[in-house]
Amino acid sequence: MKKLKIAVLAGDGIGPEVILQAQKALAAVALVFGHEFTFEDALIGAVAIERTGKPLPDQTLNLCKNTDSILFGAIGDPIYDNNPESKIRPEQGLLKLRKELGLYANIRPIKAYPKLMDASPIKKEILQGTDFVIYRELNGGMYFGEKHLNEAGTYASDLCEYNEDEIAKITHLAFKAAQERRKKVTLVDKANVLETSRLWRKVVQIIAKDYPDVTLEFLYVDNAAMQLILNPRQFDVLLTDNLFGDILSDEASVIAGSKGLMSSASVGEKYSLFEPIHGSYSEVKGKNCANPIASILSAAMLLEHFGLSIESKAIIEAVEKAIINQIVTIDLKVDSKIGTNEVGDYIANYI
Amino acid sequence: MKKLKIAVLAGDGIGPEVILQAQKALAAVALVFGHEFTFEDALIGAVAIERTGKPLPDQTLNLCKNTDSILFGAIGDPIYDNNPESKIRPEQGLLKLRKELGLYANIRPIKAYPKLMDASPIKKEILQGTDFVIYRELNGGMYFGEKHLNEAGTYASDLCEYNEDEIAKITHLAFKAAQERRKKVTLVDKANVLETSRLWRKVVQIIAKDYPDVTLEFLYVDNAAMQLILNPRQFDVLLTDNLFGDILSDEASVIAGSKGLMSSASVGEKYSLFEPIHGSYSEVKGKNCANPIASILSAAMLLEHFGLSIESKAIIEAVEKAIINQIVTIDLKVDSKIGTNEVGDYIANYI
Ligand SMILES: CC(C)[C@H](C(=O)O)[C@@H](O)C(=O)O
Ligand SMILES: CC(C)[C@H](C(=O)O)[C@@H](O)C(=O)O
Repeated sequence: MKKLKIAVLAGDGIGPEVILQAQKALAAVALVFGHEFTFEDALIGAVAIERTGKPLPDQTLNLCKNTDSILFGAIGDPIYDNNPESKIRPEQGLLKLRKELGLYANIRPIKAYPKLMDASPIKKEILQGTDFVIYRELNGGMYFGEKHLNEAGTYASDLCEYNEDEIAKITHLAFKAAQERRKKVTLVDKANVLETSRLWRKVVQIIAKDYPDVTLEFLYVDNAAMQLILNPRQFDVLLTDNLFGDILSDEASVIAGSKGLMSSASVGEKYSLFEPIHGSYSEVKGKNCANPIASILSAAMLLEHFGLSIESKAIIEAVEKAIINQIVTIDLKVDSKIGTNEVGDYIANYI
Repeated sequence: MKKLKIAVLAGDGIGPEVILQAQKALAAVALVFGHEFTFEDALIGAVAIERTGKPLPDQTLNLCKNTDSILFGAIGDPIYDNNPESKIRPEQGLLKLRKELGLYANIRPIKAYPKLMDASPIKKEILQGTDFVIYRELNGGMYFGEKHLNEAGTYASDLCEYNEDEIAKITHLAFKAAQERRKKVTLVDKANVLETSRLWRKVVQIIAKDYPDVTLEFLYVDNAAMQLILNPRQFDVLLTDNLFGDILSDEASVIAGSKGLMSSASVGEKYSLFEPIHGSYSEVKGKNCANPIASILSAAMLLEHFGLSIESKAIIEAVEKAIINQIVTIDLKVDSKIGTNEVGDYIANYI
């Protein structure tokens, strides 16, 4: 029997409703397999700003440091998006959390589900057999470098920086993952232009020598953005920096047919956080039409992370069953009348 | 009768063979329409490094400043790519040229050709009717900000910077283009994270007021990378910075079925340069199998730029004819035995 204390950071928009379904799935797993999972809610994002003035209240950070893992919903609110002047922003909460907890690797599996290929904008013959995982560095690069705006508000800058250690940590993770898979790592960068990319190439080439069974390839990010659509099967482990990883993993989500299916793990030395990759979609908040599968699959990734493989597979199987039986929301089936809650209930019951 | 003096910068890899076809097309146009086009060759890129030690010799730059326009081939050589230590690189030649000539806007039209939809990895029903143009800022951002590598070689940085004027110049061009099209501009940025993106949003919002007939929308770059594939028809004019433009325009090239079809114009106050967006593909250099259409369509963009619309359309029509009659290279027709030269001859003869 395993005891896990899980912080639940539902966040903004559809976050709360989808995360509830993930909790249902975990509760079902606890019941069936005899584990004890306890949940504790905390504020983050726009709701946290509203109630406390801060996108990441200290209380939330403390809770996260004192639990075994974190389930994360979504972040962001349109009222901040088009207001470049606002100094406090929901996203800062997530970025600070990633940094404070040392969550340096964001891991996003990309798989073409046979049952869902019709939902993808890409042709079946291109998608077939696609199965790779993106390792995105999450604690460095342009996200965290010094930002500057001059007093007149006429000049702005963002610094992209990386050091050897930051690159090395995630590179080892990526190569270890490749050893358990098809033994190929593709480093995506812009080494023909950027100094940081050249440092990535250097460090990764050195580390690659420790993993002689893994092949290392290089792609420029512009070419990679093309290759993801032209020939996604070529990838096994795609390793890249924070900003390129942000762009490419969203792009890659079209492969699975819907962003509503994509989950991710953010891990570090001590902590771990699991979240759907979709945003907060405030437009449909509370309408019971958001796809909860990404959130539920995040819960499966959480279980896998704690060595509960069978339990994790039970969730994945239930999700597949829902998809096969078309118990899915409208993003996956145009005329679907099934809501967020119903998908969640079906999956929890199946478990 | 128009006289144009054109600098020909063939560059590396397949550059020389494809640019030759563009020259053939221009020669045919000169003959048929009674113009006088003269060409002068100059070195750039890896070949220039080989022969002069510099990726952009002074002689080349001077020639470019004393001609009416520039036809550019391709740049880059694998021997530099995986050697992060090398201080001199072919790409520096192109970047310096863009900067020295003040070519601040890179314009890339993206169109789904009905005849070629089968060649695209994306489903026909998604592609149909796609017709937009990317305005990529070309003189600023991470490409030109200060780069740094510490002495130990363990820390690197790249500075992304923009000022109001740089943003304003290309924004006006983009809005003017939108007025002649479907009257919509989509600004792509990462304003939820980057200070430079927030400056872009601010400046673009202000300028938008001068163009009340044009609608302005915003997309985060991660979402844009997805939307390009999910729903490319939504775009009319896509405005973005240097790095995001690099990534998104290569990604968007899959829409047209082949990168071998995509041309681009780089323009500034005084100078203009026209180039295919594909790279140097040194692997197939001299094999007479590279697709020359992108290069030929660059020549059409050049003519359009100088007000020779009918002449430009004559080239486009000839290209369409070649495509309809399947006089195309293997990238567009798997079993094609037709080479670079033959496609070029067919198009020139048709004109
Ligand atoms: C919300 C935003 C700051 C975040 C990011 O850019 O990292 C998101 O897009 C993601 O990928 O998790
Ligand atoms: C060759 C390279 C420096 C260049 C760029 O990144 O701008 C190319 O990819 C392009 O898009 O023209």
